[in-house]
Formats: sequence, C-alpha cells, structure tokens
Amino acid sequence: MNDIRIIPIAGVGEVTAADDLALLITTAAGDGTFHDGDVIVVTQKVVSKAEGRLVPANDRDSAIASESVRVLRRSQGGMVISQTRHGFVCANAGVDGSNIDGDNIALLPVDPDASARRIRARIKHLTGVDVAVVISDTFGRAWRLGQTDVAIGVAGIEPFLDYRGQHDAQGREMTATRIAVADELAAAAELVMGKIDKICAAIVRGANVRFGRGAATELVRPPHEDFFR
Amino acid sequence: MNDIRIIPIAGVGEVTAADDLALLITTAAGDGTFHDGDVIVVTQKVVSKAEGRLVPANDRDSAIASESVRVLRRSQGGMVISQTRHGFVCANAGVDGSNIDGDNIALLPVDPDASARRIRARIKHLTGVDVAVVISDTFGRAWRLGQTDVAIGVAGIEPFLDYRGQHDAQGREMTATRIAVADELAAAAELVMGKIDKICAAIVRGANVRFGRGAATELVRPPHEDFFR
Repeated sequence: MNDIRIIPIAGVGEVTAADDLALLITTAAGDGTFHDGDVIVVTQKVVSKAEGRLVPANDRDSAIASESVRVLRRSQGGMVISQTRHGFVCANAGVDGSNIDGDNIALLPVDPDASARRIRARIKHLTGVDVAVVISDTFGRAWRLGQTDVAIGVAGIEPFLDYRGQHDAQGREMTATRIAVADELAAAAELVMGKIDKICAAIVRGANVRFGRGAATELVRPPHEDFFR
Repeated sequence: MNDIRIIPIAGVGEVTAADDLALLITTAAGDGTFHDGDVIVVTQKVVSKAEGRLVPANDRDSAIASESVRVLRRSQGGMVISQTRHGFVCANAGVDGSNIDGDNIALLPVDPDASARRIRARIKHLTGVDVAVVISDTFGRAWRLGQTDVAIGVAGIEPFLDYRGQHDAQGREMTATRIAVADELAAAAELVMGKIDKICAAIVRGANVRFGRGAATELVRPPHEDFFR
C-alpha cells in the first residue's frame, strides 16, 4: 500500500448559479495540480449553489416535505429524518442553510451522480486529466453521535471495494465485507475541509480505488435489506 | 488547512496474546517515524489478538449472545445486529473471524478506550513522542450498503470537532454540526489498510484534531437521542 495524500483546494471563492464549478476548482487548484487517478471530492453545498438549488429560508418546511419521499422520524426540535428521492436517509432531506449567503437554504442536487459525471468530464476537457469525482455531504448516523461526510455523487470509480469471495491473509473466504470506499473518501476529505474555512474541494491522491462507472445510488440500502424502515 | 498524509505501517506481522503491540507497531514503523500530533490508527483485530480476546469458532453463537446487551434485529442469514456492552451497535456484537489464524474468532476488546490509552502511553514511553491513538473497526450502516471503519477506542484527542455555537463563513450560527472526527480518521486510515494485505496500523498526519482526553464511548448515541431503538 502507498501513502495517501489529502490536499485541500483553497481559493474557489463564492459560487453562484450557473458558475462553471469545474473551472473554478481547476483554476483554484492551479495548472498541473491534478494527476490521473486523483479523486476530487467536492462538497454538496457548492454543487447545489452552482446548480441554482437554493430556495428562500422561509420555504424550509415545504422544501423538506417536497424533497422527502418518506419520513422515518420527527424529533421534538423540528428535525425530520427522511428519505430523499435519490434514496438517501438523512436529516431534513439534505435541506440545509449553513454556509449560504443571504436568506436562502440549499436543496440537494437533483441528480448528484450526474453532477459528478459532469464535473469529471469538464475537468477532463479543461486539463486532459482523468480524475474521479465524489460529491460529499455531512450526514448523521442512527446510533452514533456527530456527523461524518459520505458520498452522494460518484463518477469514475466504483463506490465499493468488494472483498466478498476473496480470501483473507489466513485463506478464509470473506462473505460479508464490502467497503464503502466512496464514503471513506468523502470522510477523509472532510478532514481538510472544516465547516468554517470555505474549503469546498479536496484531492485524495494514492487511494486504492477501482476505476469504473459506479454511482452513489448503489450505496442506498434497498428496502428488502433495510431492517430499520 | 494543511495537507494530510495517511501512511500505512507494514511489517507488524502476526500478533498473539500478550504481545507488546505498541512495540511491534513502533518497530515496524521504524525509528523516528512518529511525530508529535500524529494519530496512530490500529485495527481492532490486532488489539483483540494482543489482548487474548479469541474464542473457538464453535462458540460463535454463545459469544455473540454474551457480548450483546440488546438485540436490535436478526436477519435470515443468521446475522444479528446488536448493541455491545460498550454501547456500539454493529453486526454480531463485533464478533468476527476474518484475518485470524486457526479455528478462532475474535471478540472486541473489553475496554477499547483503555486499550487506546495503553498503546498511546507505551508509544510515548518507547519513543518519547506524543501521538493520539484510534482503534478502528469495520461497521455497517442502517441505510447504506457496505461498511466503513469507525472508532471504537480513542486516546489523546477529542472524538468530535464541535462547531455548535460557532459561525460559518457567512456569519450564521451552526446549531447542529458536530463532526465525528475520530470516525473520519478511522475511515481515512482504512483506505491504506485493505482487508487482505495484513496492514493493521496507519499514521494520519496533519489532521485538524483537538488534543484532549476524549473517549470513543462519547460517540455512542444515548437512548433518549436514539430514534431507531
């Protein structure tokens, strides 16, 4: 195994609707920074801004309702845990007002996997470099406090490293292990982003990923395997 | 924000009961490798081996039962999702047979936070260097497929980066954000470990962590905040 480097991309600046996000990120990173095989992790918030997915903060409740296809729980504090139309289970259907100018809140991208594919293709066009792209968001967990970043969009890699059917160092077949590597890449990138530093993108270099045509929707647990519906 | 490096520690070799795990890891890393402020992530499996937490594979069902304080779900395939006495919710109470010689299976350490504190103190004694230690394990998630590594033991850092009450780049107060940074460190380290490469420890260098007296049990969601009991 190689070392991995996680490199924050500073200086993207404020992003608004119809901005060319891939160009902003590529310019901020600087010429020659990206290498073939790099994974570029981009936060959901800037993708939503570039795609114009902002609504007035006053419309918060109706936005959460319209972004949710299924409500799992409502807390006393007004927080909803619901499933989005993409299949993700998270607080308030991903609707969130942090790090947004003015009186707006952001919705998740309509199709974050498509957003990731577009950013990846645009970076290839601008730089000639074949990178993978992960769009990250900050989700809570059912039984653990605090949040971690996970992948809501993926392009250029498979979201899993699947060990099922392989043999461990003792020759024992592994029957269940399938690492959600896209989520681990998102979590690793969060470590250089912070929440108050305006870092909206990072490079993860040297990770053992499988290049391919994966999508973050593959990470959604299907109903028949969901024990906690 | 700085770059982060994740450095696998190769060559620890097979670990058996009563081995000095901190010495094995320090020797494998090599003189002068650790720096003050490094986070050393160590997999649960080698900690359990060094602590003699192995039982015969034939005792699997009774081991899972005795390691569980509460069963949340049982799947048709014989998998149990239960809560351990530490409070962690995971498959089979963390009882697992992968990467173990012979016909044994491993239980979680009795007190993984204490294990982390011992390893940290021993590394300080051996090297003079102040590192933090995270003990990682591979857990599934309620609504996402695949597994990611999380922290089950912590020493030398706070498990959270707590942004509650701080202000984002737009001056808006963040009311909910508390990043489970110990879990993200575990996930990041998993990226250099793999499951068939016998890498049982890694260095995470340059991460923005708060040094302190934290414990992984702080990551357990208490019953009154658990919507999915």
